[in-house]
Amino acid sequence: MKKEMRILGIDDAPFNKFKKGNVLVVGTIFRGGSWLDGLLSTKVRIDGSNSTDKLIEMINKCKFKPQLQVIILDGIALGGFNIVDIEKLNKKTKIPVIVVIRRMPDFKKIKETLIKLKKEKKYKLIEKAGEVHKINQLYVQIKGINLKDAEEILKISCTRSLLPEPIRAAHIIAAGIVKGDA
Amino acid sequence: MKKEMRILGIDDAPFNKFKKGNVLVVGTIFRGGSWLDGLLSTKVRIDGSNSTDKLIEMINKCKFKPQLQVIILDGIALGGFNIVDIEKLNKKTKIPVIVVIRRMPDFKKIKETLIKLKKEKKYKLIEKAGEVHKINQLYVQIKGINLKDAEEILKISCTRSLLPEPIRAAHIIAAGIVKGDA
Repeated sequence: MKKEMRILGIDDAPFNKFKKGNVLVVGTIFRGGSWLDGLLSTKVRIDGSNSTDKLIEMINKCKFKPQLQVIILDGIALGGFNIVDIEKLNKKTKIPVIVVIRRMPDFKKIKETLIKLKKEKKYKLIEKAGEVHKINQLYVQIKGINLKDAEEILKISCTRSLLPEPIRAAHIIAAGIVKGDA
Repeated sequence: MKKEMRILGIDDAPFNKFKKGNVLVVGTIFRGGSWLDGLLSTKVRIDGSNSTDKLIEMINKCKFKPQLQVIILDGIALGGFNIVDIEKLNKKTKIPVIVVIRRMPDFKKIKETLIKLKKEKKYKLIEKAGEVHKINQLYVQIKGINLKDAEEILKISCTRSLLPEPIRAAHIIAAGIVKGDA
């Protein structure tokens, strides 16, 4: 794997979880863990179910598509409980997907919350995303890629902090655009 | 000067010059020419005259203010002819300002256009920004800093291309947020 491989890192902006509406989603295109080559953006519904289709559309129409070698998501959900179907995302873009999670998710609590919200169907997407693996101090779910290659990609991209640089930057950018300062 | 000095790089997003309204302005906070540390954003009026005040407000209220060592602008105007008074910007923020211009401006043509648009007053802000100096392949106008230090800052920050990394990134981010792909 090349150190200059093109990586797409995706994160959402902060939002008011008591309001309906859309939340900004930012995708940074990095060369490995160092340079910002491009930026994609879209919007997804807070607690909605359009995040998978919105990401597929954003990625498939972008000019960097032929170069993209992996998609890294900062968590499996955008805009609250708008959960990404990473199997479909991988299938429709033909790009491997890595979900990076900072703490081991409390699946029991997530399931209970979704049942309370009468959104238990969403839990199936989390289950469908597969086993959670530990790589160094991060947890990951993967599609279209093996654990060894995912580990190699994290090694290449975690240059500045414990997080892959493309999602660290996506987080700062999305928050700075929405809040004015991040 | 330290290689890790905090630099604020400012650029605007693309906009429709035939419409009225605001244009997104993005400020990236970089450590020298390498890492994105933070992101600021604001909006300025297309062809308006509020860019100086909007930048001063954005900078003075941001949490990175005490660390910021220089402001680099990608051109002296935002949103068309919303020209930045860099003397006021420097005075009110107490941070040195460097305007980076890719080609030597055709001041005669700019003056003629502004007279045609009955906006000749704006030309005074361009004149007030002072002499245009050539540093390597770029042109600069400076306030609150000498030419030698400005040259050193460009040397530290032009890591990836001919342009300082903070404004190269600000350009990509602003365009990607507004157009969805950049």
